[in-house]
Amino acid sequence: MGWRRARCRRSSCKLFFPEDPVKIVRAKGQYMYDENGRQYLDCINNVAHVGHCHPDVVNAAHEQNQLLNTNSRYLYDSIVDYAQRLSKTLPEKLCTFYFLNSGSEANDLALRLARQHTKHTDVIVLDHAYHGHLTSLIDISPYKFRNLEGQKDWVHVAPIPDTYRGIYREDHKDLVAAYANEVKEIIEQAHKKGRKIAAFFVESLPSVAGQIIPPAGYFQKVAEHVHKAGGVFVADEIQVGFGRVGKHFWAFQLQGEDLVPDIVTMGKPIGNGHPVACVATTKEIAESFAATGVEYFNTFGGNPVSCAIGLAVLDVIEKEHLQAHAMQVGNLLMELLNQQKVKHPIIGDVRGAGLFIGVDLIKDKEKRTPATEEAEYLITRLKKEYILLSTDGPGRNVLKFKPPMCFSVQDAKLVVDAMDKILTDMEKEGACEPVRDLQS
Amino acid sequence: MGWRRARCRRSSCKLFFPEDPVKIVRAKGQYMYDENGRQYLDCINNVAHVGHCHPDVVNAAHEQNQLLNTNSRYLYDSIVDYAQRLSKTLPEKLCTFYFLNSGSEANDLALRLARQHTKHTDVIVLDHAYHGHLTSLIDISPYKFRNLEGQKDWVHVAPIPDTYRGIYREDHKDLVAAYANEVKEIIEQAHKKGRKIAAFFVESLPSVAGQIIPPAGYFQKVAEHVHKAGGVFVADEIQVGFGRVGKHFWAFQLQGEDLVPDIVTMGKPIGNGHPVACVATTKEIAESFAATGVEYFNTFGGNPVSCAIGLAVLDVIEKEHLQAHAMQVGNLLMELLNQQKVKHPIIGDVRGAGLFIGVDLIKDKEKRTPATEEAEYLITRLKKEYILLSTDGPGRNVLKFKPPMCFSVQDAKLVVDAMDKILTDMEKEGACEPVRDLQS
Repeated sequence: MGWRRARCRRSSCKLFFPEDPVKIVRAKGQYMYDENGRQYLDCINNVAHVGHCHPDVVNAAHEQNQLLNTNSRYLYDSIVDYAQRLSKTLPEKLCTFYFLNSGSEANDLALRLARQHTKHTDVIVLDHAYHGHLTSLIDISPYKFRNLEGQKDWVHVAPIPDTYRGIYREDHKDLVAAYANEVKEIIEQAHKKGRKIAAFFVESLPSVAGQIIPPAGYFQKVAEHVHKAGGVFVADEIQVGFGRVGKHFWAFQLQGEDLVPDIVTMGKPIGNGHPVACVATTKEIAESFAATGVEYFNTFGGNPVSCAIGLAVLDVIEKEHLQAHAMQVGNLLMELLNQQKVKHPIIGDVRGAGLFIGVDLIKDKEKRTPATEEAEYLITRLKKEYILLSTDGPGRNVLKFKPPMCFSVQDAKLVVDAMDKILTDMEKEGACEPVRDLQS
Repeated sequence: MGWRRARCRRSSCKLFFPEDPVKIVRAKGQYMYDENGRQYLDCINNVAHVGHCHPDVVNAAHEQNQLLNTNSRYLYDSIVDYAQRLSKTLPEKLCTFYFLNSGSEANDLALRLARQHTKHTDVIVLDHAYHGHLTSLIDISPYKFRNLEGQKDWVHVAPIPDTYRGIYREDHKDLVAAYANEVKEIIEQAHKKGRKIAAFFVESLPSVAGQIIPPAGYFQKVAEHVHKAGGVFVADEIQVGFGRVGKHFWAFQLQGEDLVPDIVTMGKPIGNGHPVACVATTKEIAESFAATGVEYFNTFGGNPVSCAIGLAVLDVIEKEHLQAHAMQVGNLLMELLNQQKVKHPIIGDVRGAGLFIGVDLIKDKEKRTPATEEAEYLITRLKKEYILLSTDGPGRNVLKFKPPMCFSVQDAKLVVDAMDKILTDMEKEGACEPVRDLQS
């Protein structure tokens, strides 16, 4: 298949396991199946949120596809129903909804809303952030722009509130104040240059930065500084929303009930794989945007099929109690991984919330040097055991769990048992030996 | 329904017929049905390309939805099949494909490709152009930015090659050279300021500009100037591709066989309403893009369901000979409209290709003053006859036909008969009387 892919298609998308890619022909729940009928346990697909090919979602799509799929210049009920259902999950203030086709479109609109409302231009983001693949979003994604043209003058990068590897760590007496003061300092420096802050954009749980759990209360402190500067607070829930974190429906809610973002963006899991996305914001911001007289119209956004699918996903989350399930299974998985941490010195940190979990692999306890090759080797070995896991973080040393939400207790045990065996093997062979073996 | 829509949803999308919007509950072929079972003839939905809810497309979606819907980090056949099928419709040089979720995402990527390949920044667009709703695209859409912050210094606006209302008209001896020289002049002026052209973006048939048919050969001349300046030529086929123009599969092909765009963008009709889009480009441009080392990844873009749907749309176009059908019905509709032009002096111009047709309504033959209110009145009266038509152009006086491709000879006759009756009434009443009537 490699040559077909290469000859007449795009060339810059990385495959999983590029040396030996997986050809998947079907999927169900938390499992994917290759052309030989082999079953893989999927620990990474946060898009197939309620499980691959969930029948309720598939049927909702089919019923609506047979009936009507048009644009929102016509009236139809489902778009209103969907907005109302989403509004029930959010703070009351967030009562205006825009529907779009991708998380990237959502973040781009959030940027436009923020700028139109504040009449400011500048954006503060966290280091290693990723907010999307559009021109405007690469500009606010250090994960991307560090490798391209570099940083625009209207973009400011704050240190990632990573309490394990960041500039302030678990031994610091007030992590919230320390990290939030960094943002305050950035605002002050920007003001000295005559610049003005439109928004602080943040993934509610930073993902490509290495599955980071910001200390609770950090967002509130930052929001305070940002609001004082006339900017708005944008919570990017594209990776982590819709009950994944277990305790709450939205990951920003982990920070505390008193946090109300001005804009929330949603994507990936929202349609279980169907291209749909959403921006929720306040009446005031929506009014500022409408006041330009230039309408926002999105051809496919919020069409009746996208709304039917979105509603079906919400129904399944409720009916199957997936949020509670994510908490239960996530807690167990964290516990099992913490047991492994005691046993295997390569595991430096286990962190997470619900079914969003990171395992930080290190070469040494003192410097916490990222065990990049070892992480790569581990996931390659897991793949041979038909378990799909991947890595993230700037050091590509953080194992990242974000499975479909139907991931079970048995699945958790299976993957941890497999990890245990492989790590034990690696220790026997000397941690770096197997890496050479892999490359030969 | 009005209040529900207003209370908990977006506020800046204009409805069709805002005073008395249509609540549609189902649609089939070229017909839409309201909550009372009334059938409307749809003359405007170019997204429902092969007909609303076409069973082949609906079934392709359902089959694939039940099987697998994942991202392109895994291998699956349909993405390769789809790229190959599309490549057969295009000049050989356009052999690399990127799949995305919307025309806007496609144009944004085209902009990134152009800039990365040329290392230039500036873009030339036609006046009144619309290339999408993203931050980067509003910047290159005079239709939008004229009402917002205005024109960026890296954007240059060339006159629209409108041979009926433009700066050079049907009586000019060399329209191609005259309009292309305007672009040449812009390039020269830009160079004097030290600026460099990355791309010329053009809708192959400009739509919101008023259903414009650029004179054949204009694109080639422009491409020559743009290439000489080191820029690339981007044909935006989002509104008009996939056989709509009848004679050819792509509207840019109306310009002549010798035109090969460097980038072609596709959207709206590509998935018959499903959110999918595509960028086709050359190996060289794709390689320049890949050389940055930053991959392009789009979560939903080109997923197996989108590819299955895209393939089904191509199958239906072929199986039902919709391209030939569009030519046949389009030609008849043009003929009937031209008969009306002789009869009704309000019709200043009838122009089109296949099932992309504009009827330019004027107040007087000399100045060709746009008959804005009359156009609005006409479509409102047509709606009462259960015919959905709309207006476009800067004067909002151009009736725009872009129906589903199954639009029939009978449909064409029906709508022209209805127009004839309404125009006759309007003439009896004195052209502007009915407008006052409408507003009371």
